[in-house]
Amino acid sequence: MPVQQKLAGKFIVIEGLEGAGKSTAIQYIQDWLISKGLSEQKIELTREPGGTVLAEKMRDIVKMDVDDEQLDDKAELLIMYAARVQLVEHKIKPALADNKVVIGDRHNWSSLAYQGGGRGIDLNLIRDIKQVALGDFKADFTLFLDIEPELGLSRARGRGELDRIERLAIDFFNRSRAVFQQLVADEPSAVCIDASQSFTDVETAIKQQLDTWLASL
Amino acid sequence: MPVQQKLAGKFIVIEGLEGAGKSTAIQYIQDWLISKGLSEQKIELTREPGGTVLAEKMRDIVKMDVDDEQLDDKAELLIMYAARVQLVEHKIKPALADNKVVIGDRHNWSSLAYQGGGRGIDLNLIRDIKQVALGDFKADFTLFLDIEPELGLSRARGRGELDRIERLAIDFFNRSRAVFQQLVADEPSAVCIDASQSFTDVETAIKQQLDTWLASL
Ligand SMILES: Nc1ncnc2c1ncn2[C@@H]1O[C@H](COP(=O)(O)OP(=O)(O)OP(=O)(O)O)[C@@H](O)[C@H]1O
Ligand SMILES: Nc1ncnc2c1ncn2[C@@H]1O[C@H](COP(=O)(O)OP(=O)(O)OP(=O)(O)O)[C@@H](O)[C@H]1O
Ligand SMILES: [Mg+2]
Ligand SMILES: [Mg+2]
Repeated sequence: MPVQQKLAGKFIVIEGLEGAGKSTAIQYIQDWLISKGLSEQKIELTREPGGTVLAEKMRDIVKMDVDDEQLDDKAELLIMYAARVQLVEHKIKPALADNKVVIGDRHNWSSLAYQGGGRGIDLNLIRDIKQVALGDFKADFTLFLDIEPELGLSRARGRGELDRIERLAIDFFNRSRAVFQQLVADEPSAVCIDASQSFTDVETAIKQQLDTWLASL
Repeated sequence: MPVQQKLAGKFIVIEGLEGAGKSTAIQYIQDWLISKGLSEQKIELTREPGGTVLAEKMRDIVKMDVDDEQLDDKAELLIMYAARVQLVEHKIKPALADNKVVIGDRHNWSSLAYQGGGRGIDLNLIRDIKQVALGDFKADFTLFLDIEPELGLSRARGRGELDRIERLAIDFFNRSRAVFQQLVADEPSAVCIDASQSFTDVETAIKQQLDTWLASL
């Protein structure tokens, strides 16, 4: 079977903390796909939460600052899944049905890591919501970019020092990271990449992992 | 125990199809509470979906018309519960803790009836979501105003005839009504009121049911 046919209709997801290098990695994956002969028209990029008109409205709510009213953790979780199901049903599934390769900038694991690990909602409750929202739908291949929160945040902010609030958040991100690490350990169709390496080394690692995955298809 | 003390911190919910007379009934309930000696400051009204700044934003998404993009049924369900948990945590629970009586214009049953009966989502999936979102939180007393969809819609629209779309929707509302009827049959802290009766008869029935409930407290 030709390579393009093997890749047709596959959903590749990049997960990782802030500044891990997800957006950068997506560029490497696109290059790799094109090197395998895929045309740009056959590649679809998504980001979460968001990616459709209604899902972006939901993203706005999650990002919104309202005086005297904090978004409840459970409400945040439910909106994340509402946005995800809207994206999956209206964009990802149609693209896969159209034989495209979809590259997702974050997907389901981010909810387990952030709402579960970070905010402390029971992972099994989140899995129940996932099952109701998406059933068995999942990524075909997941690349987790593992990084220390301090390094990721300093990359994302372009500097080395963290302020009081950023330091406070480190615990949140460490709990999220631990969930990501457990998820990748448990999932055969996922790999962990050391994202603290140089650009070149991360790029090489990603492309090697993609080659291994492709060979297994 | 004085009556006001018995009623303090109670959550009374009105459920029913469009035009059943929920808003009208809430007026009767307020009159009744005041006749029992409650002050207006001790009565809080809520409507669903909505009722807080963020929950109203979620309501907007549910009501929004977007070209080429329909809100997915599951996304609708999840947003309904996101809005509900936000309302419960930020408005209903604080009011109850403040010894107010909260009167809810719709609550959890509307999701079971509309998203479950109407849209056809498995009721057990909805119950899973409810459990994640709200745990065991529920109304202390539920009044279900039972009405034929045709009569309710004609009341709501102030005329007797239904157009093609309204007739199409009748099936949806009949399925929703059947779920409401089953829920009220299964729930000891709920009563069914024949909402097809005259204003006076509905008012009398509601006040009698409230008296019976109060006597049981
Ligand atoms: N391997 C690397 N070594 C050093 N810097 C890197 C590396 N990969 C990415 N960066 C830089 O770190 C910053 C964050 O990278 P990128 O935007 O790809 O991360 P991200 O995971 O997409 O972040 P966010 O979660 O904020 O979207 C960018 O300035 C990027 O150029
Ligand atoms: N028992 C009744 N007999 C006749 N008309 C009634 C009765 N109760 C209410 N109405 C009228 O029916 C219309 C709908 O009533 P109401 O607004 O109370 O219903 P509702 O359940 O709140 O509707 P919605 O779901 O649209 O909010 C109003 O014009 C109201 O005056
Ligand atoms: Mg990015
Ligand atoms: Mg009303």
